[in-house]
Amino acid sequence: LTSDELFAGIVERGPVHDATSDRAWLDAMLRAESALASAQAALGLIPGDAAEAISRACSNADDFYLGGLAQETSLGGNPVIPLVAALRVRVPASADWVHHGSTSQDILDTAAMLLAKRSLNLIGIDTEVAEDAIEELAQRHGSVPMIGRTLLQAARPITFGAKAGVWTEGLTASRERVGRVADALPIQLGGPVGIVDLDNDQARALAAAYAAELGLAEALPWHTIRVPIADLAGALATLCGVIDKIARDIVLLAQTEVGEVREAAPGRGGSSSMAHKHNPIAAISASASARRAPALAGHLFASMAHEHERAAGAWHAEWVPLVDLLRTAGSAISWLGDSLCHLEVDEGATATNLRRAIEQMDS
Amino acid sequence: LTSDELFAGIVERGPVHDATSDRAWLDAMLRAESALASAQAALGLIPGDAAEAISRACSNADDFYLGGLAQETSLGGNPVIPLVAALRVRVPASADWVHHGSTSQDILDTAAMLLAKRSLNLIGIDTEVAEDAIEELAQRHGSVPMIGRTLLQAARPITFGAKAGVWTEGLTASRERVGRVADALPIQLGGPVGIVDLDNDQARALAAAYAAELGLAEALPWHTIRVPIADLAGALATLCGVIDKIARDIVLLAQTEVGEVREAAPGRGGSSSMAHKHNPIAAISASASARRAPALAGHLFASMAHEHERAAGAWHAEWVPLVDLLRTAGSAISWLGDSLCHLEVDEGATATNLRRAIEQMDS
Amino acid sequence: LTSDELFAGIVERGPVHDATSDRAWLDAMLRAESALASAQAALGLIPGDAAEAISRACSNADDFYLGGLAQETSLGGNPVIPLVAALRVRVPASADWVHHGSTSQDILDTAAMLLAKRSLNLIGIDTEVAEDAIEELAQRHGSVPMIGRTLLQAARPITFGAKAGVWTEGLTASRERVGRVADALPIQLGGPVGIVDLDNDQARALAAAYAAELGLAEALPWHTIRVPIADLAGALATLCGVIDKIARDIVLLAQTEVGEVREAAPGRGGSSSMAHKHNPIAAISASASARRAPALAGHLFASMAHEHERAAGAWHAEWVPLVDLLRTAGSAISWLGDSLCHLEVDEGATATNLRRAIEQMDS
Amino acid sequence: LTSDELFAGIVERGPVHDATSDRAWLDAMLRAESALASAQAALGLIPGDAAEAISRACSNADDFYLGGLAQETSLGGNPVIPLVAALRVRVPASADWVHHGSTSQDILDTAAMLLAKRSLNLIGIDTEVAEDAIEELAQRHGSVPMIGRTLLQAARPITFGAKAGVWTEGLTASRERVGRVADALPIQLGGPVGIVDLDNDQARALAAAYAAELGLAEALPWHTIRVPIADLAGALATLCGVIDKIARDIVLLAQTEVGEVREAAPGRGGSSSMAHKHNPIAAISASASARRAPALAGHLFASMAHEHERAAGAWHAEWVPLVDLLRTAGSAISWLGDSLCHLEVDEGATATNLRRAIEQMDS
Repeated sequence: LTSDELFAGIVERGPVHDATSDRAWLDAMLRAESALASAQAALGLIPGDAAEAISRACSNADDFYLGGLAQETSLGGNPVIPLVAALRVRVPASADWVHHGSTSQDILDTAAMLLAKRSLNLIGIDTEVAEDAIEELAQRHGSVPMIGRTLLQAARPITFGAKAGVWTEGLTASRERVGRVADALPIQLGGPVGIVDLDNDQARALAAAYAAELGLAEALPWHTIRVPIADLAGALATLCGVIDKIARDIVLLAQTEVGEVREAAPGRGGSSSMAHKHNPIAAISASASARRAPALAGHLFASMAHEHERAAGAWHAEWVPLVDLLRTAGSAISWLGDSLCHLEVDEGATATNLRRAIEQMDS
Repeated sequence: LTSDELFAGIVERGPVHDATSDRAWLDAMLRAESALASAQAALGLIPGDAAEAISRACSNADDFYLGGLAQETSLGGNPVIPLVAALRVRVPASADWVHHGSTSQDILDTAAMLLAKRSLNLIGIDTEVAEDAIEELAQRHGSVPMIGRTLLQAARPITFGAKAGVWTEGLTASRERVGRVADALPIQLGGPVGIVDLDNDQARALAAAYAAELGLAEALPWHTIRVPIADLAGALATLCGVIDKIARDIVLLAQTEVGEVREAAPGRGGSSSMAHKHNPIAAISASASARRAPALAGHLFASMAHEHERAAGAWHAEWVPLVDLLRTAGSAISWLGDSLCHLEVDEGATATNLRRAIEQMDS
Repeated sequence: LTSDELFAGIVERGPVHDATSDRAWLDAMLRAESALASAQAALGLIPGDAAEAISRACSNADDFYLGGLAQETSLGGNPVIPLVAALRVRVPASADWVHHGSTSQDILDTAAMLLAKRSLNLIGIDTEVAEDAIEELAQRHGSVPMIGRTLLQAARPITFGAKAGVWTEGLTASRERVGRVADALPIQLGGPVGIVDLDNDQARALAAAYAAELGLAEALPWHTIRVPIADLAGALATLCGVIDKIARDIVLLAQTEVGEVREAAPGRGGSSSMAHKHNPIAAISASASARRAPALAGHLFASMAHEHERAAGAWHAEWVPLVDLLRTAGSAISWLGDSLCHLEVDEGATATNLRRAIEQMDS
Repeated sequence: LTSDELFAGIVERGPVHDATSDRAWLDAMLRAESALASAQAALGLIPGDAAEAISRACSNADDFYLGGLAQETSLGGNPVIPLVAALRVRVPASADWVHHGSTSQDILDTAAMLLAKRSLNLIGIDTEVAEDAIEELAQRHGSVPMIGRTLLQAARPITFGAKAGVWTEGLTASRERVGRVADALPIQLGGPVGIVDLDNDQARALAAAYAAELGLAEALPWHTIRVPIADLAGALATLCGVIDKIARDIVLLAQTEVGEVREAAPGRGGSSSMAHKHNPIAAISASASARRAPALAGHLFASMAHEHERAAGAWHAEWVPLVDLLRTAGSAISWLGDSLCHLEVDEGATATNLRRAIEQMDS
């Protein structure tokens, strides 16, 4: 077991955890180095056999010792420096062509985009799961009348379908935003000082080939213009805001005194001291996960002021919070789908609450 | 003079301040009530002469006493309640048709979108001013060689044009995001519990007419799905991140020991104790303004979990921070444009610094 | 009416608003300048009649035109520069002794501490009001049994007194923290580059006299060590967290389906569309105000990295958020006290809810 | 190697990492269960041999399978539920006395305080290391004249000793705050609904014995009054703000064009693309670590509104950010001490910069 798993079941649930592990970073950095060599060889910038040797060496992450990379990361300030050194050792005859014309930030930012793209896609799939679960609930209970509540006070009758429709609207809108960001995630390729000569056809062709190889969007270097990170932050914080809204609605509807919904997941929601308790633990965990997003997004926005041609700290301060934001969003949507899939609507309770609310209004 | 102007010259500069004043809110709420009545009359939902009377009453905000509205706001929890009461007094014969079928949140959210749209458009214009100023600087000094700096250490030579190109890239990308958000800002029209019957052609026609009247996008009610607010937060925090990057670059380049740029605005940048000081006060103020954005955006994301059919607090917690975010972004871009328009590049200093850096590398 | 009052009734309620107005800033800056001159004269550092003239000129803030100061603030980057100029005009014979040996930051930081001290004292008083209101509720209903709720599910019986005791515990602990911070708020007196020679008895005596004159704590210059601001941020965010806890408990207890408490303030809590509504608007406004604190505190912590001997932006970025935090905390506690003073406990509802919860547990 | 170590060398450096590992949590939870049993036995509340058996079972964390606990955590929403089950299996004859009268939150909150206390003590020690390093630098270079800089512009001469004194002042003040918080960290002991009968001498004696056993402060239950967490957040964000100030000063002083200091740590600070680079990577990493604190503290403040007698999400949302904040503060101070211990002051550069600044002022 790794050292930070104890709370992962609550706030880092779902597939994004593995998609952003150290191993996933290693894979992505190697993919970036490999794609760079391939693209350069295709344009005749480095020898073809060097590119093949480099790509071969990059193809198996198991050859690299993550523990060592982690330790050496603190010497140069990022994990690409020791990775490039380790890669050169593996291809002695082509060592000079490894990482050719590139800089650490090119590889690390590109790797971050690869991880983010995979994570956003996973989040998109889990969002669809949640939307489908709402759709199914709406088909079963859509026409059930219930009291609408404003400022947590009984207001006017609505239907469960109307409430479900609002939930769906939020998830769909957020999923579209996440998807748009995922589709636009760019390569990073700027070299030592992040400058590409736009009049240079070769430079542009290289960027195109590198992007095509990796399935990322072409882009000018954004070493110090962190708009892609900001786009991620905005879309994920938006999604988490919607998730938290729905999760809290579920928790409120599941209150003992309201009782309109119930999470019916066997073996879950118990208490260490009270046997009768039945806590909506999936919705609670979705909310707990989602609540972490605003501060993480705020941090990423606050880290955008990268000095000159590479930042002294603001870049380094992005890495862990970016992973945390991807994971907590992945956890939130995974839990929300779980809650919705197990949700039971108590039509008797909705009817009772509605009747009482109307009586109270009329009195 | 109003009571909160002392620091406005630093962190609330520019036209967004007035575009989000109490008076602007009053105008926008009245515009929303008027558009609602007109759209309802056009569909035959309320009498035409009632709509005309209402629109006439709404057409002059001077008839309403802002001080009274502000005081009564605290009684019901929002300013629409006293405004509707005041409006009804002005159209006694049509009082029943005022605010017909609507709820406070419809009017206040719509008003917020009107203010935001105007503010984003102003911000977009000021961003173009800043981009033009960079373009002009680039035309004058684009080919000037200077040292590129990574982690605040001399790295490799670049040109001033390359640095300017990165700045422009950031502003253009952010301006496009702000523009896309502005174009999509929606009406709010959901009635007491935020529910529109989508099978109801009349409801949809009313939304379309209301949107057309106001120049906002059509939308399903989003009383508790705060995605439009989140879109605003994301786009403005992104823009402010870019502004802060450029502003800090200017401050760093203007350091006494670097001296590559200088803000040449007569009568500005002095000190209360040191006559020789020449502070790049426009860039500093741009940075100070921009730095407020991440926390404000984070707050708006954190306020997205609106309970049930209207929130008990999360909605009320949005209003002032939304205004603050619009203003601080407006201030940041206004100051940045000012700094860039007055910026002088000292080609002698860039040459000296470059030469020294190269000597140091070679030694 | 000033331009930003429309929402002030909700999120800037109470006396802290006026205690942090532009006029309050002007008064405090003048008090600082006056105290500086007096302290210097007492030590023979400036002529006694100059100090008297300066203090006289400082004694009436009405002689200064706030509008002009606000406009000129943007020229030098802070309001002290134009204020000192205006003050010198008023004491032509002693002009050279005005602001003697001081810097803008000395005066502005000292003024901020004076405003903060007054605000914290007001907040402390309003916190005691809220504590007294809880005490009174506890005396009336302390032994009333009610269901305790964990994770918003019925758990075990408690009494209203037990719940009230937890509320009090939170307010008392927070008030003590706020009080400790208030008592330790320091003067600022460092001169142009924030350096005091500690071997210099005169410098230390001056700091002591200046502090005594203003009722602030003595301190070494903290121009770039923003610990006093951080202390404020921590204490107020803590208080607001406690307020939000209590306010949300009230909103939850006031839910139609729970109905254990009710805000009985005549003429308040109505709706623009639903006449039967009775919203706990004081608790909602307390929560809305309190929720703003975490982001504001986070911003102030993030603004602590002041460069070298005076910051280029981080200092300027503190001013408005500090005022906002003081006001929103003041608003939160003012509203909470109001809610608690008007709170009615429905002992019938607590009994019914408790009985139902126990029946459900046993079944 | 564990799964999240790749960036730990940069932003989770130092001993706090291990002091907050899953294993540390397990140890602390077992210590809490053991102390509870011992304290209860001492008061005759449970049989002495049951307490001995429980304490024996708790004394070796190796008997518990962390992987299993982590997996089961997601079923009940916290790790105490499966831990108590596993503990009962190990003491079949005393199973009923395990976790007697306690609730999950008692154990988890107490464990969090044990971890926090250890972490704060480690942070305190590392802060003293940094203070000592400054002291040593001041002894060597204290009287060296250098230019003071305000708004990043040359202002007036100071000495290196004056600057170092400001740094020390900030660290000492922060360390005292951290120490005060550490000394006051309380036990948690409230039982199922967080209520202790204060008239009950036994309950008070139990709290005293439990606190004494654990070396924590006595306290009323604070299940939903998160002031101890807020105290931690405030003190650590304050410390990190001071660290970031010093770290950025070092980075600015180390700029190629300034060159007044240099981190002389062999084998560190290199670049993947530029052999001549010498980056002040310790100061950069200190800054990167410290910058994470404001958002984490803001999140913890925002998580204070715990509903009723136990929160539905806000509590769960605290755990990981609390660990992250402890670690990032630990990392920041560890890196800062490292930077300061390796810092070389270039007295030639300070003299040159000072001379040039004075020439420029006079011209």
